[in-house]
Amino acid sequence: MKTTPAIPTPDDAALWHEGRLYLADQRLLPERAEFLVYDHAAEVADAIHDMVVRGAPAIGVTAAYGVVLAGRDAFAAAGAGWRQAIEADLERLAASRPTAVNLFWAIRRMRDRIAQLDAADPTPALLDEALAIHEEDRAANRRIGDLGAELIAGPTDIITHCNAGAIATGGYGTALGVVRSAYAAGRIRRVYADETRPWMQGARLTAWELMHDGIPVTLQADCAAASLMAGGTVGWVIVGSDRIAANGDVANKIGTYGLAVMAKYHGIRVMVAAPTSTVDMAISSGAEIPIEERDPAELLGCGGRRIAPAGCLARNPVFDVTPAALVDAIVTERGVVLNPTTEKMRALMG
Amino acid sequence: MKTTPAIPTPDDAALWHEGRLYLADQRLLPERAEFLVYDHAAEVADAIHDMVVRGAPAIGVTAAYGVVLAGRDAFAAAGAGWRQAIEADLERLAASRPTAVNLFWAIRRMRDRIAQLDAADPTPALLDEALAIHEEDRAANRRIGDLGAELIAGPTDIITHCNAGAIATGGYGTALGVVRSAYAAGRIRRVYADETRPWMQGARLTAWELMHDGIPVTLQADCAAASLMAGGTVGWVIVGSDRIAANGDVANKIGTYGLAVMAKYHGIRVMVAAPTSTVDMAISSGAEIPIEERDPAELLGCGGRRIAPAGCLARNPVFDVTPAALVDAIVTERGVVLNPTTEKMRALMG
Repeated sequence: MKTTPAIPTPDDAALWHEGRLYLADQRLLPERAEFLVYDHAAEVADAIHDMVVRGAPAIGVTAAYGVVLAGRDAFAAAGAGWRQAIEADLERLAASRPTAVNLFWAIRRMRDRIAQLDAADPTPALLDEALAIHEEDRAANRRIGDLGAELIAGPTDIITHCNAGAIATGGYGTALGVVRSAYAAGRIRRVYADETRPWMQGARLTAWELMHDGIPVTLQADCAAASLMAGGTVGWVIVGSDRIAANGDVANKIGTYGLAVMAKYHGIRVMVAAPTSTVDMAISSGAEIPIEERDPAELLGCGGRRIAPAGCLARNPVFDVTPAALVDAIVTERGVVLNPTTEKMRALMG
Repeated sequence: MKTTPAIPTPDDAALWHEGRLYLADQRLLPERAEFLVYDHAAEVADAIHDMVVRGAPAIGVTAAYGVVLAGRDAFAAAGAGWRQAIEADLERLAASRPTAVNLFWAIRRMRDRIAQLDAADPTPALLDEALAIHEEDRAANRRIGDLGAELIAGPTDIITHCNAGAIATGGYGTALGVVRSAYAAGRIRRVYADETRPWMQGARLTAWELMHDGIPVTLQADCAAASLMAGGTVGWVIVGSDRIAANGDVANKIGTYGLAVMAKYHGIRVMVAAPTSTVDMAISSGAEIPIEERDPAELLGCGGRRIAPAGCLARNPVFDVTPAALVDAIVTERGVVLNPTTEKMRALMG
């Protein structure tokens, strides 16, 4: 089910168009820019699992559209009995990936909408809700961008890890939204993008997005960050998040934790940019966040070529937890939390 | 000039055989194990530059054999005038890579031998010296292995970065020599090998060597080290070095510095295993160590496939400097220096 109705731009990587969901295949970027098209929720769940789409807020938006497709199929199959028929798809979507809480947040919000509906075709109402989730995420990111940019005295260099850009969200980006706003305000000189093994989201996606925006970007090996920090030009590490616990502990792409430790050692500040849909007040600390482990094969080769010896073991956790004590600011659309604590997070989330 | 007289084993990656220098091509391992054969010093300099051979002590040993070839060619070309004729090759060897001081140490030692020779064919004397350098390095590594193993209370897991094994040295290995000795003594449970972008020496070489020895090894992304450290099973980070300054600052593969910062944060100790040929008492601190920058192309692709967008900038320093304050032990064949300082390093080096 492949088509190329238009070359995706970073801000339009997930699109609802004429009753179908279009997702830019992020596994192919930047080498190829093409959309995959989805008509059924089970395929959307596979797309999330297989990382056609990644990035916590983008996963949430995608899952919401997946629920629209699920509702349409359920009504077509079961008519007035759609509420029972939709359940398997909702569960399949929820099982697609474990760490990004935005997935569960979006499905819960869609369930809340479902609970308000009668036996008629739910598709229009579910689509309204999904489009609202999408548009609210875009708006949240613009607000996050403004709030984050205000924190940066600048001009300074910054380091980002993985990709928390437009394509990782409903649009504009979280960490890269801050970068866009701060660069426009003259507060960022250059972005150093960690390449982010094993999926290379930094090399493939962050570099692509920033070059698309004309923002100076330099790629570096993940393990080169400390030597850059020692040079004294970096004022901030700015990253996104997949889940923030009630005490301000932050789950994000593997490597974020080490980067935060290095930043602390060098007196560099750490900013986590994420919408409140990423905050999970139901868990008290990062120790409770499920950390996805992916196939070791992702580490045993690169670019389609085997690297490690046959039979080599590998550990491949794809997220880690940065304790709140290493985070200087959590920036959400509702406001900024400096030196996060449970009390401050509660005040933010109301 | 490719041949496969025998499959190289980790301990025999550099061999002098019937008047020729054999080097296992480390760029191909572990996918293919084959020797390249060298008859002229200029080719040896290219082999060092192009990373057919890498690892500071191995570069030193290789350069020494390169001087043998240079002497033979110089005498063939200039007879009694060989001392002048050899100079261009010596300079070419010295210019092959900038950071590993073992290269300059080996060339200086060969120059000292040259200074003692008369106008006759220098080849036998130079070969004696090169073979002595090679054998002394092997013996030093066995001693380093024993001394390093004694420091490890164990049993514990350890992390190593890049490759400081048999093939990075004259044989047995420095950091991996410690691992071999400590594993044999029951003090190491498992080795976590950072894959070590961009050249993947950890995935390709360290994993290969340890599997060859039957030592449990698990590969991880460089940026996954901190999350492993947080788990509490790792007692030591053990690495080699390319140059150690008079104050105990340590230049090693890019990423070592960040790893040491993370180790300090987690209360994990850092061991640097290196022969005294790696110590450069002529420079007072790591700030004076020249750090090689290699082609950004090494970061823009992987496994022969392009990753980053065309035109993307990249920084590719291949070493960093770990300050002595983050190093718990420097282990050499002459003894162990705990919490290194200039005074202690002077006492070691006499």
